[in-house]
Amino acid sequence: MQSKAHYHKTTTLQQAICAARDGSADLVIKNAQFLDVFTGQFRAGDVAVQAGNIVGTVEEYTGKQVVDGQGLFVVPGFIDAHVHIESSLMTPARFQQAVLPCGTTAVIWDPHEIANVQGVEGIRWALDASEGLELDVFVMVPSCVPSTTPALELESSGAELKAQDILEFRHHPRVLGLAEMMNFPGLLHGDEDVMNKLVSYGGMQRDGHCPGLLGRELNAYGVAGIHSCHESTSLKEAQEKLSKGIHVLIREGSCAKNAADLLPLLNAYTSSVLCLCSDDRNPADIVAQGHINCILNLALAAGHRPEEVFRIASFAPAQICGLHDRGVIAPGYQADLCLLELNQQGNWQAGFHIHQVIKAGKIITAEALETVAQHRTCQQTGRCNMNMAPVQPAQLHIAAHEQQVKVQVIEVIPNQIITQKKKAILTTQDGNVQPDLEQDIIKIGVFERHHGTGRSSIGFVHGFGLKAGAVATSVNHDSHNIIVVGANDAAILQAMQRLQELDGGIVVCDDKGTFTELALDVGGLMSHRHPDDIAQAIHQLKQHAKRLGCNLHEPFLQLSFLALPVIPALKITDQGLVDVERFCLTSVLC
Amino acid sequence: MQSKAHYHKTTTLQQAICAARDGSADLVIKNAQFLDVFTGQFRAGDVAVQAGNIVGTVEEYTGKQVVDGQGLFVVPGFIDAHVHIESSLMTPARFQQAVLPCGTTAVIWDPHEIANVQGVEGIRWALDASEGLELDVFVMVPSCVPSTTPALELESSGAELKAQDILEFRHHPRVLGLAEMMNFPGLLHGDEDVMNKLVSYGGMQRDGHCPGLLGRELNAYGVAGIHSCHESTSLKEAQEKLSKGIHVLIREGSCAKNAADLLPLLNAYTSSVLCLCSDDRNPADIVAQGHINCILNLALAAGHRPEEVFRIASFAPAQICGLHDRGVIAPGYQADLCLLELNQQGNWQAGFHIHQVIKAGKIITAEALETVAQHRTCQQTGRCNMNMAPVQPAQLHIAAHEQQVKVQVIEVIPNQIITQKKKAILTTQDGNVQPDLEQDIIKIGVFERHHGTGRSSIGFVHGFGLKAGAVATSVNHDSHNIIVVGANDAAILQAMQRLQELDGGIVVCDDKGTFTELALDVGGLMSHRHPDDIAQAIHQLKQHAKRLGCNLHEPFLQLSFLALPVIPALKITDQGLVDVERFCLTSVLC
Repeated sequence: MQSKAHYHKTTTLQQAICAARDGSADLVIKNAQFLDVFTGQFRAGDVAVQAGNIVGTVEEYTGKQVVDGQGLFVVPGFIDAHVHIESSLMTPARFQQAVLPCGTTAVIWDPHEIANVQGVEGIRWALDASEGLELDVFVMVPSCVPSTTPALELESSGAELKAQDILEFRHHPRVLGLAEMMNFPGLLHGDEDVMNKLVSYGGMQRDGHCPGLLGRELNAYGVAGIHSCHESTSLKEAQEKLSKGIHVLIREGSCAKNAADLLPLLNAYTSSVLCLCSDDRNPADIVAQGHINCILNLALAAGHRPEEVFRIASFAPAQICGLHDRGVIAPGYQADLCLLELNQQGNWQAGFHIHQVIKAGKIITAEALETVAQHRTCQQTGRCNMNMAPVQPAQLHIAAHEQQVKVQVIEVIPNQIITQKKKAILTTQDGNVQPDLEQDIIKIGVFERHHGTGRSSIGFVHGFGLKAGAVATSVNHDSHNIIVVGANDAAILQAMQRLQELDGGIVVCDDKGTFTELALDVGGLMSHRHPDDIAQAIHQLKQHAKRLGCNLHEPFLQLSFLALPVIPALKITDQGLVDVERFCLTSVLC
Repeated sequence: MQSKAHYHKTTTLQQAICAARDGSADLVIKNAQFLDVFTGQFRAGDVAVQAGNIVGTVEEYTGKQVVDGQGLFVVPGFIDAHVHIESSLMTPARFQQAVLPCGTTAVIWDPHEIANVQGVEGIRWALDASEGLELDVFVMVPSCVPSTTPALELESSGAELKAQDILEFRHHPRVLGLAEMMNFPGLLHGDEDVMNKLVSYGGMQRDGHCPGLLGRELNAYGVAGIHSCHESTSLKEAQEKLSKGIHVLIREGSCAKNAADLLPLLNAYTSSVLCLCSDDRNPADIVAQGHINCILNLALAAGHRPEEVFRIASFAPAQICGLHDRGVIAPGYQADLCLLELNQQGNWQAGFHIHQVIKAGKIITAEALETVAQHRTCQQTGRCNMNMAPVQPAQLHIAAHEQQVKVQVIEVIPNQIITQKKKAILTTQDGNVQPDLEQDIIKIGVFERHHGTGRSSIGFVHGFGLKAGAVATSVNHDSHNIIVVGANDAAILQAMQRLQELDGGIVVCDDKGTFTELALDVGGLMSHRHPDDIAQAIHQLKQHAKRLGCNLHEPFLQLSFLALPVIPALKITDQGLVDVERFCLTSVLC
């Protein structure tokens, strides 16, 4: 693994050795206590930094720049072991602006969403857009694009990636391996393309995703060389995975929150085999609550020892992912450092806040991150995000001859991405089945946006509570076609039209033609805007949806998962309504 | 890192997944308890193996072959994190025959001795001779050949390896990095060739060797990316190294025995950052006492918990060295397994013995190892080991005009490789200074054997106790020229002649021309003979030396270090007597 901690020039190495030996460095933190993750002690003494790396600890150093760490604790920078940056709605440069000040100095990104939209081109963009940032972004190559076997024709993704398509990324210096293998049914049945992907990424990290898999099936999953999983939701499940040599990534995302359930796994012995990850975390949560630092505070509040808690955020993921140049505060390791202040002096259980972050020896400032982000704004994917003709009113019709019909309805469950199947009676008008606001049954539509096929489907959904207007978004897992819900056809058409004008994003409109919107100009998934602006836009969008009657806490996130045909029970894609339990298309009319 | 645990064919992977899922494998261990190194628990249940890898744990499996593990414990195969195989006097195939039955399933070899004799050709031979064995032999490329800077002209090694000479080995699939950087003075002073070696092996493991280095100098050493050391001799030294991010390898060799002093480092937290190693272990010790298993028994006897003890012999070195395919008993890891029987049921403190070893899924048998070793006997280095003319009597003379002279004498200290400087008065005869058996002062000579230069030097040594005969050997750290001690010139000449006829090895002869000998036909360092035969030969050589008056416990090992000019205080090389404290040549006559 090529990394910044290695000196590529003998002269730089000579200078660093000289600095370490003679006691004079670029930057020195004095008077703090720093965590030694090898023995689990907080130690007093200087931490000296030169040319991006730590050159001295404990002994006294003079520095061109001196940071007074009186009363502070220094811990290694945090590593997010599995994240979809796209879920933050931010480009990598904006994401770093949001998470670096939270102490996250490296992330392992599965650019699964942009890969679903743009295929290998999306992965190339992800690598380019994350190159040379302050934040170290390592990439896992998406293994399951699209989420379902294309032969099933359950959805139309922007791209389909076979084993040979992803070969080119193996040797990229920041690619660590193959991303979450969600297709565990395919794996267990020896699907040839799945096998080819696993074999061609042999000798590299191959990440897992196997919710609920246990017993011999879990054994079989491990046999494929997959030794990590971030999908455990119960302690028992996580314990079995851990005991089967599968590193458990404790996830605390915006929807999936597993820290409380899984933290009891942590002790001195396991502090080298566990990691933390955010997976999917929305912009509002990152801006308001933070990133990996949130999980650390949860763990400390639960009474876990800081030397164990901070180890699973740094040294453990570094070791597990083969990033041997980081995660330790000692000479010759990358100077990725968080200076922490306790919320209550001497009491870790009351938590900490970030005082300062040093990344590769540089003190992180808001100004510098903003400059980088602005500079990167011009870095587009070079593609139009919407390859589709304007939606016609007829596309929204559900035809029926009877006056009353029985229909299948997707029932949204608040704060969950699974749905339930519901049946309802609706009336028809001029041969078209009508929504019923009284029953909270409104239309939901998915429109193919990648290949200009004009394919679309319409169904009904219960649980949004919209009494007027419509909500549309191009963020729609995993295929990211357009998904829209609306109280009436006119509002849906308006929202769709505006979303097309924006070239992707999130739109809320009312019946009078008033819009709230967030353009997501990169792939219809990410924005170049400032994290605070994005969080603010989401807030305004939510408020607007609320005014229209929407009673969901996370309307856009919930909407974004209604087209994912691998999560039970009833979903809708551009191909039609999907009965996930039977893994086949089904009709709206019963 | 390419490794055996990865399936290179989709069909093999499919079969393994199928076996794991369906419960039918090649080999199943039943009724044992196996160690789960992720959580530190011994667990009940089957361990199923297929095509070299573990395919199932806990769940029930049927096996073509079933091993009844009733009353046994299964732990991951042991890893020797730093060894010079040459010190066993065995070729790799013979070494595996000695250590695999002791539970060692992988070693990390620094072929430093053969590299000093034969240079890059020696390293190539080391890679060839260790290819395709049952034992996994990973190689670290020697960083310090010869041991001293050639410009000092303190000794003549067989080869000199500059940074560009060792570049070719970087990409070998079993090369993990750069071996022990003994030249820490050179490193601390930014020596260019040392820098070039460190930089060109950047991103790979770079092993350390820094006895007694502390404080800012230790910081500087770590800055060079060196994060391991096996030379700590005190707990305090090891604690400082560990706290500075340097993995401590606890060594228990034949001479250097550090386990008792360093084992107090071990606890649940540090069990992921410590390793074990043998460094230099002689054939008699391996045959009589074992290998890494000995250190494990010492640790258990000291009261350490088995889950911590076995972790530092398996999972920890595997992680640290990036061998992510092993060290864990779980599906998808290599099936390197030791079946242990407790010496006293239920009491780890009383130790264990090895019941059976399974390497990459195969039950290790003595017959199979003997077959491999015999097959490999023909694998020579293809070189003559001795490039030198017969020694002439005049080469043994030390001329002086006075009747009595004061001389500098090397004083051997039993069981240590350091020496003391001694002064003595000797008499001359026909202009030649004579040894004095009464004072136990005899002649010691070193003869260049690599380049046919005819260079030799003669001095005096105290402490061998020889009253007759001579001892000569081609094992002579690190340059491995011939070293000889003898009670008289005639015996020395006889021993030298016989050693030349053998093309290297160890020879003891008496004054009547009776020889005891062990030929070391590979580089004058290693033998193709059975480990038991080598141990027996050493025993006979020692007995013969004892009959000649030698009172040292390890006469050949001690002799082998008298030419190493980096260990204090007075040494002798082919260039002459070396004052190590002043790092220069000195004369025999005061």
